[in-house]
Amino acid sequence: MRSRAQNAELALLLEVAGTPKPGNVDRERDLDDLHFEHFLAGAVGSQDGLRAAEAGASVGEAFETAVSGMSEQEGGNTQFGCLLLLCPLVKAATGGDLSQEGVREIVEDTTVEDAAGFYRAFDHVSVFVGEPPGDADDLDVRRGSDAIPALRDRGLTLYEIMEISAPADGVASEWVSGFERSFRTASRIEADDGPITDRAARAFLRALAESPDTLVAKQQGDEVASEVTDRAAELVEADASREAIGDFGDELVERDINPGTTADITAAGLFIALERGVSP
Amino acid sequence: MRSRAQNAELALLLEVAGTPKPGNVDRERDLDDLHFEHFLAGAVGSQDGLRAAEAGASVGEAFETAVSGMSEQEGGNTQFGCLLLLCPLVKAATGGDLSQEGVREIVEDTTVEDAAGFYRAFDHVSVFVGEPPGDADDLDVRRGSDAIPALRDRGLTLYEIMEISAPADGVASEWVSGFERSFRTASRIEADDGPITDRAARAFLRALAESPDTLVAKQQGDEVASEVTDRAAELVEADASREAIGDFGDELVERDINPGTTADITAAGLFIALERGVSP
Repeated sequence: MRSRAQNAELALLLEVAGTPKPGNVDRERDLDDLHFEHFLAGAVGSQDGLRAAEAGASVGEAFETAVSGMSEQEGGNTQFGCLLLLCPLVKAATGGDLSQEGVREIVEDTTVEDAAGFYRAFDHVSVFVGEPPGDADDLDVRRGSDAIPALRDRGLTLYEIMEISAPADGVASEWVSGFERSFRTASRIEADDGPITDRAARAFLRALAESPDTLVAKQQGDEVASEVTDRAAELVEADASREAIGDFGDELVERDINPGTTADITAAGLFIALERGVSP
Repeated sequence: MRSRAQNAELALLLEVAGTPKPGNVDRERDLDDLHFEHFLAGAVGSQDGLRAAEAGASVGEAFETAVSGMSEQEGGNTQFGCLLLLCPLVKAATGGDLSQEGVREIVEDTTVEDAAGFYRAFDHVSVFVGEPPGDADDLDVRRGSDAIPALRDRGLTLYEIMEISAPADGVASEWVSGFERSFRTASRIEADDGPITDRAARAFLRALAESPDTLVAKQQGDEVASEVTDRAAELVEADASREAIGDFGDELVERDINPGTTADITAAGLFIALERGVSP
């Protein structure tokens, strides 16, 4: 039987293989400097961190290890957000309670040391982030481990950092909502049929249709993020063909629009679905 | 840095992602019952066996563990032959001598117990094999672990089993030739440029062009295997377009021709190239 860490790694691989996932790298699409093979190497590289999470390491330590390994390829950030969801989910599964309640307990229990690990992860790879909230310049994640003294001064846990980030960040808002969208995505993948990669692609589009992608909002503004979500909703409503969804993807790529946060949630949903027994 | 086992797993993933690889599953092609996602799960599942090889397990034990994990997906045999090459290569790399001489030492040192592990691996998955040589019915690999008593009676090591199989099996002939084609493929991947998956696809076609694929020979006969090699050689010689190579692939799939042994050698070459520092 695959271990939890192996299911988490497989979730990363199945996520990037699912197609069409408009605007993102997938089995049928590379972006200019970010290719499919970078995601393959990123997934394999994440292994030690995911194994650490399964073996009982703290969320912050497991996450930093995973991001460090993920970064050993030339494409840059491939699965940072995915791993921020997967590390606590692996720990919840290992603890025997892979439920919204179970993962809520894991993330609420995080400490200032977990927050330090999270900040250290930014030393390994360049991640696109928005401006920090007005009063939190000293906590700007772009400072990486240099921000750790300020973090300790303020005594903020990783959960509290996520609370600060949640309004503008779809991964952080998973942390504070008990991974609501990740579990909803898992249920959709379970209820669907056909190859698991096709299910994942459909679940991605439904997730994109229900809520604006926060990476798109940070990179292109709220209006563009809302437009993308409305367009995805129209495609879902119309039960659009693969071709129509592919055309939408062509347009997004041309406009440099990458709904990466929705991909993160899809990977988290895939992990939960794999743990529940859905399998390639 | 990725571990040896991680490079071996990544080699499996890059191999299946390289396209076009005429007649085989690749990033752009699924076969009817054998899909890309089965190879992703097969690669992740192989992990424990590859880690065991790195940690010092015998070739037979590591191989059986790898095949057992690989088989935990619905597609059947995905990477049996690849793993039979990768297990000794991982051990050679771990021993500090990833060369033809180094891996030759590893395989020549295999024992009757390694052979028993190899036979047990057939209990986990159905593998297409030819008829055993005339005097070796009791050693038919299709008997799986039931053949182990005969194996012990005859006192055959895994290397000796490979010697018996080598004339008709391209993976076994790697074992007895010091992995000559695997190393040649690695050198081609190193000398080439562009994304590693494209290099792998080109190296696959060159390997197919130089020697008939033994899986094709077993499934379709020597004449078909020779024809496929001649056609591949024409494409290499003409520096054919991706499209022309893709058309050749369409024809092979239509005729149920899968040059799987050449894919095994490509995966072995990818591992060696990754160990030498080529990276996605």
